[in-house]
Amino acid sequence: MERVIIDMDEVIADPMGEMISWYQETHGGKVDFEKMLVGSWVKGFPEQHWEMVMERLLAPGFFRYLPVMQDSVEVIREMNRRYEIFIVSAATEFPNSLKDKLEWLLEHFSFISWKQLVLCGDKRVICGDYMIDDHVKNLQHFKGKSFLFTTPHNLRVTGYERINDWREAGAIFLK
Amino acid sequence: MERVIIDMDEVIADPMGEMISWYQETHGGKVDFEKMLVGSWVKGFPEQHWEMVMERLLAPGFFRYLPVMQDSVEVIREMNRRYEIFIVSAATEFPNSLKDKLEWLLEHFSFISWKQLVLCGDKRVICGDYMIDDHVKNLQHFKGKSFLFTTPHNLRVTGYERINDWREAGAIFLK
Repeated sequence: MERVIIDMDEVIADPMGEMISWYQETHGGKVDFEKMLVGSWVKGFPEQHWEMVMERLLAPGFFRYLPVMQDSVEVIREMNRRYEIFIVSAATEFPNSLKDKLEWLLEHFSFISWKQLVLCGDKRVICGDYMIDDHVKNLQHFKGKSFLFTTPHNLRVTGYERINDWREAGAIFLK
Repeated sequence: MERVIIDMDEVIADPMGEMISWYQETHGGKVDFEKMLVGSWVKGFPEQHWEMVMERLLAPGFFRYLPVMQDSVEVIREMNRRYEIFIVSAATEFPNSLKDKLEWLLEHFSFISWKQLVLCGDKRVICGDYMIDDHVKNLQHFKGKSFLFTTPHNLRVTGYERINDWREAGAIFLK
């Protein structure tokens, strides 16, 4: 069975979407998607609110209640029958996110086992046949085939085959 | 730089030793090292206490305050200068252990970054040049060179080159 490495944030979970919704509700502020193009969605928030956004990211519970990316459950459920799936998240920078991410995954992707989750800091140590990720830093050292999952912060990145949403992923992996 | 994958429990941290000390202090009971030879140190405790031992393993805090294996800090500090070191622990079975393991590592191995920690369920997804681990299930799929770190539960295992303690590891990796 071929192994597919799937990222969590901005790929199957939506921390950016959750943060924007919360920010708009509580501060009525606007997010500048252009500024995310330096590689981080946090940069899309006004600079005077970066600290507040980071504090919320670091707090226990934030990663526990994130929206699930559209169609990801249905497509990955079927992929899980045909491939060896690992969900790999660069998470050790955020100590409070670790348990939250595990519980979130087991709740929403109930067909995925704890054996299939990897929480790490640097994905160079991960090997597989395919990797789906929104960050070039994770894809560039990968020995298998890489797919850049499209999200506002990577719109200007070139040189990678893209997956724009989970229906596209299904068309590639379940054909 | 060559990459060395180092396990946590029974290799750099000592949950078995901690559990035995606690058990002897609180229950005055004896541990049967012969029974660990089926592959798990939990089996060394009397069967009527397995549930209690497992409960303690699963509780928040247990992995936060474990003894450090002798000489491991000094040897790994030097290895960290000459190799790309990753500390890889099969931990996602124990949700409460995740943050504890990160904090324990950063406290005792202060020269190791959060980027060098991997918390996973199945080590087949990990690649590197060398792996030091006390479980055959982790070593058997590894593509690089494997070393079995000696601990009471694996004394009867054959077919692997052994490292019996961290002075031996130093003699191998720092020669």
